[in-house]
Amino acid sequence: MRFDVITIFPELFASFLSESLMAKAIEKKIIEVRLSSPRDFTSDRHHTADDRPYGGGPGMVLKPEPMAAAIEAVSRGPARPWRIFLSPSGTRLNQSRVRELSRLDSLILICGRYEGLDQRVIDLLADEEISIGDYVVNGGEVPAMVLMEAVARLLPGFMGKSQSAEEESHQGGLLEYPHYTRPPEFRGFLVPEPLLSGNHKAVREWRLKRALAKTLALRPELLAGADLSAEALKALSRLNSPEPVSSKVRKSKTEGV
Amino acid sequence: MRFDVITIFPELFASFLSESLMAKAIEKKIIEVRLSSPRDFTSDRHHTADDRPYGGGPGMVLKPEPMAAAIEAVSRGPARPWRIFLSPSGTRLNQSRVRELSRLDSLILICGRYEGLDQRVIDLLADEEISIGDYVVNGGEVPAMVLMEAVARLLPGFMGKSQSAEEESHQGGLLEYPHYTRPPEFRGFLVPEPLLSGNHKAVREWRLKRALAKTLALRPELLAGADLSAEALKALSRLNSPEPVSSKVRKSKTEGV
Repeated sequence: MRFDVITIFPELFASFLSESLMAKAIEKKIIEVRLSSPRDFTSDRHHTADDRPYGGGPGMVLKPEPMAAAIEAVSRGPARPWRIFLSPSGTRLNQSRVRELSRLDSLILICGRYEGLDQRVIDLLADEEISIGDYVVNGGEVPAMVLMEAVARLLPGFMGKSQSAEEESHQGGLLEYPHYTRPPEFRGFLVPEPLLSGNHKAVREWRLKRALAKTLALRPELLAGADLSAEALKALSRLNSPEPVSSKVRKSKTEGV
Repeated sequence: MRFDVITIFPELFASFLSESLMAKAIEKKIIEVRLSSPRDFTSDRHHTADDRPYGGGPGMVLKPEPMAAAIEAVSRGPARPWRIFLSPSGTRLNQSRVRELSRLDSLILICGRYEGLDQRVIDLLADEEISIGDYVVNGGEVPAMVLMEAVARLLPGFMGKSQSAEEESHQGGLLEYPHYTRPPEFRGFLVPEPLLSGNHKAVREWRLKRALAKTLALRPELLAGADLSAEALKALSRLNSPEPVSSKVRKSKTEGV
């Protein structure tokens, strides 16, 4: 998968791409990330990429020509990449769209800055406008990181064991069950018994029940769109009332640890 | 505003904090960002911050003690900071919550990694679980950047003119109107006439109408929660059908540019 990021702040991505899982994925050639700036497609000596908005108002707007030229420079080649403009006005990103995008070969991520990007560039050159959520950040750069991480981690070979990506929140439409590791007792709170049982069926049932209860309590609307197994539907019908999500794990008074 | 980020990958934030608006905000002392790692609160020589999950399964879980110790180390002081765990299972972030958070003095942002964080740390030490959207990324680090940007830009002095933050998408609950800058014609497409008119009232009405039409077409559910002025309600009642959002700006055939 190739990502072409168009941004006036390519330096913002340096440590994101040189640390942790993204760096490994680049090294393993699972992903390729190219950064380019509209400033390199300007003709004036100050490399001006922005200008004042028509109609007045505060802030600056990214000029159409340098941005269009930058997008077109990375669009060449046998298969035209899918062009995404990251914007708080776009369609809201969700895991099912992330999965679809992860099947493409090449994405162009167009990052707005300042007040915005000239609308004509969006109309002419963007295939899709995506918002990562109903809030405003400084530009499309951090949203582009969000999108790259979300997509990259679904690619074969990205994660140590591919199952890791499968079981997580919003895969299958449920929130994730809680996790525990050693020690068995932490500040008086115990790890839930089924997880210590060594009984795989009991573990699976407990995790499913907790995922369902958490989803029902916090995000019930997700259940409507969830892809529930027969086992999940049965467990759901048995949940009379949602468990409080941050309920403390009760410490058993009769058992030592 | 002080942000304390707890992460096993503090290096991931280097260029995010040293470039662009965030760097300026740090320099102007509008924000302070401190990074700390649970690895610095481990006692073994390998600085082990993760362990295998109880109940089995792929991936690793962040251990409770080092994470708890890291959170508590930055919680000291006269006023306890508000502690946020960034998680895809959390309450979904929106601009109204961003505004509330921007009124606090100090936030601790707890970043999960690997499969997750031991649930007992979340139950005992997190005040709130926040999700930036219904998708899964590699950890809480990029979501912490999202949250820091969204909150920081609302602080006095962060933006050149504070009005810039006020007028944008999801302020007031509407999507933002489109922006245009020079040249007046780009690839045959003109800037909409009201923006060239020099008539402030006409500009304001056009922008409001476009913001309403865009919201109605793309995110009609936002209108229910929007804080609409009398002028906006009147304009909304006049919109018979939503305009297509990516409608091309029609080129006038009778006028040259």
